[in-house]
Amino acid sequence: VTGSGRSDEPLRWGEFELIDHVFAPLAKEYAGAFGLKDDVAALAMKAGHQLVLKADSLIESVHFLQEDPPATVGRKALRRALSDLAAKGATPELYLLAIALPETIGRSWLESFAGGLAGDQVQFRIALAGGETSRTPGALTITVTVAGWVPEGRLVRRKGATPGDEVWVTGTIGDAAGGLSLLNNECVAPNNTVHERLVGRFRLPQPRLAFGKRLLEFARSAVDVSDGLLADLGHIAEVSGVSMEIDTVAVPLSSELIALWGEGQESVLRAVSAGDDYEVAFTTPESAFETVMRAAESSATAVTRIGRVTEGAVGVVMRDSSGREISSPRKGYMHF
Amino acid sequence: VTGSGRSDEPLRWGEFELIDHVFAPLAKEYAGAFGLKDDVAALAMKAGHQLVLKADSLIESVHFLQEDPPATVGRKALRRALSDLAAKGATPELYLLAIALPETIGRSWLESFAGGLAGDQVQFRIALAGGETSRTPGALTITVTVAGWVPEGRLVRRKGATPGDEVWVTGTIGDAAGGLSLLNNECVAPNNTVHERLVGRFRLPQPRLAFGKRLLEFARSAVDVSDGLLADLGHIAEVSGVSMEIDTVAVPLSSELIALWGEGQESVLRAVSAGDDYEVAFTTPESAFETVMRAAESSATAVTRIGRVTEGAVGVVMRDSSGREISSPRKGYMHF
Repeated sequence: VTGSGRSDEPLRWGEFELIDHVFAPLAKEYAGAFGLKDDVAALAMKAGHQLVLKADSLIESVHFLQEDPPATVGRKALRRALSDLAAKGATPELYLLAIALPETIGRSWLESFAGGLAGDQVQFRIALAGGETSRTPGALTITVTVAGWVPEGRLVRRKGATPGDEVWVTGTIGDAAGGLSLLNNECVAPNNTVHERLVGRFRLPQPRLAFGKRLLEFARSAVDVSDGLLADLGHIAEVSGVSMEIDTVAVPLSSELIALWGEGQESVLRAVSAGDDYEVAFTTPESAFETVMRAAESSATAVTRIGRVTEGAVGVVMRDSSGREISSPRKGYMHF
Repeated sequence: VTGSGRSDEPLRWGEFELIDHVFAPLAKEYAGAFGLKDDVAALAMKAGHQLVLKADSLIESVHFLQEDPPATVGRKALRRALSDLAAKGATPELYLLAIALPETIGRSWLESFAGGLAGDQVQFRIALAGGETSRTPGALTITVTVAGWVPEGRLVRRKGATPGDEVWVTGTIGDAAGGLSLLNNECVAPNNTVHERLVGRFRLPQPRLAFGKRLLEFARSAVDVSDGLLADLGHIAEVSGVSMEIDTVAVPLSSELIALWGEGQESVLRAVSAGDDYEVAFTTPESAFETVMRAAESSATAVTRIGRVTEGAVGVVMRDSSGREISSPRKGYMHF
């Protein structure tokens, strides 16, 4: 049974006490949340903008581990959904939270969970606008629905990559997978710093919202990297009807991941096939180079050019340091 | 383990095949769904309107039973959320679906599930705009987020009940609880028709969308009846700062429920404390009587006056046939 190992003060709250104590404080600054005391959340329109919506579930033993600190669990649920907004150039407005709680979850867990969300709400300028709490006989499941704004007709789609475009990615790839391999005791970090940083990347993604808004200036296509870089670039290639060539040696790995997995092609292939990065991959015309670099600098976000869009067969090709095609056996994290 | 008794053809689909086969067909008519091939759904604004949002989870063994037909499971998930829109006077636009599947769910279950949703999409003029599918080690969990429109500033709130108002409710109360008591073998129906109708009310709520839109003409406050009539009227009383007096003898019970539970005060008290009705309770000025009746007639929705709003202590009071106050031990369905 999931969650059976957790020990916490029993809840001893009715459903409405739980909402009043834990969730209503997160909604107090958003008028359309009605203090979580109505059936729905209300949202006023924003002139010249369209709304973007994303619902995403975080499930215990699938997307996070029972031992993960509750303060990071709520933030990971929120940040995963925010990462989708970032990749579309959108600005967050509100989120809804539907949480299914097993009986092992008690007060202190919920208070830490909500505390984590409170911090993220300030950091990402987003408010809780609606919530729903249920009991579950199964795994703790947190479903976040985020809503954000993008200027009318400016949404950055997956579709739009054009032969001649350059392929970019933010941050570094594979760190969360490295962190998970440490938590699963599949390997041991050479030192504490490496351990903490990689585990931190698994537990607490960094949605690229500041850089994401700048995508509107230069991106022809973009995707949230969550299934794995190779799989997610594959989504762009498929809907854009293009080929992509990725230079293995250009894929950015962190020094921590290199300290864990080693340098070289094997580590890169493992990293591009792993999930949970929550970076943004995008394509731009070659002429956009300076604009991309300025956006990266002003948002303090690392970006790396990793390949190009071509007219070849639809799909993604990885090339080694001498330009030869690498056959990669695995495309990304698959739920099924 | 939840769902272990289910037998079905194994899934043998990857995540993207599953989306392509089962969910993408439900999204094909909504442009902003991008064929479920992008990170988000997009929604154009509607002049003079505000958006209302609601996220709601349906969990196996909590909100539905493993034996329930898959075609009704998806519809119940959708209809529960639509019922919240109905109670606010809103018109549905789109929904997002986040589904966490245990391994026991196979193709035929999913195809029936999607078939049920397809029918409801036509009936309620709503489209799937985004989806997310995960594996869960626990209970099948379906989270639906609905979005709908209401004319700017016209949202019918829970807050607004005013002393002198009359209290109304649509349909009949307690049927779903009767159906659940039959499915749990707590009682036996006198005949098949009673059994089927009450079980049908548990499995397949009827969101009062047609009548709901008319609430804008006359309702001072309204609530979706999901926790139980007494508990949900309590929500109106609390946020409106009023007292409500409900005439037990006026609460509408179906002939099927009376055939199961019998006539009289005990059955009514049981019905008003049970959940899952998905009717709409609302208050209106006395002068609105004719308008309410016309709205009921033109939307083919039964409505009943069951009490009044007064200036007494905040809360809900039940009165028996001679006007005496009844003390009721139980307020509604509580998750915790």
